[in-house]
Amino acid sequence: MQSLANTPFHEPSVRAVLAGNMVRLRGEKGWSQEMLAFEAGLHRTFIAHVERRARNVSLDNVEKIARALGVKPYLLLKD
Amino acid sequence: MQSLANTPFHEPSVRAVLAGNMVRLRGEKGWSQEMLAFEAGLHRTFIAHVERRARNVSLDNVEKIARALGVKPYLLLKD
Repeated sequence: MQSLANTPFHEPSVRAVLAGNMVRLRGEKGWSQEMLAFEAGLHRTFIAHVERRARNVSLDNVEKIARALGVKPYLLLKD
Repeated sequence: MQSLANTPFHEPSVRAVLAGNMVRLRGEKGWSQEMLAFEAGLHRTFIAHVERRARNVSLDNVEKIARALGVKPYLLLKD
């Protein structure tokens, strides 16, 4: 039985969607990456990596970032 | 300046929301955990741990699970 997982999937990656939403929401608050990192209890370089899609973020950290930005976690993954 | 991260937040954890949506969507397809694991290219015990909220899943794996279930990743985190 052929796995569905390799069916073509022309969606922006979830990393790209998260990065785009983070930059947009952070910008709306006028926050630096450092400010978001402080509010989320994470490191500034970690935030920078996530916004460059260079990090395979865990759900618990998505939750911290969402809470800091004042949105529900699922909205960070909604394109 | 007081971090927002510790403000009370009486939402189901994102792990709980993910687990609930996975069990529901997998049930709607009549799939076992093994079937979902095969479709997602992941291990059955990994799926079992996620559904028991015992795993801090990465975004890339949320994407694989979502693709296997045929939904957009953000819908797996929507309560």
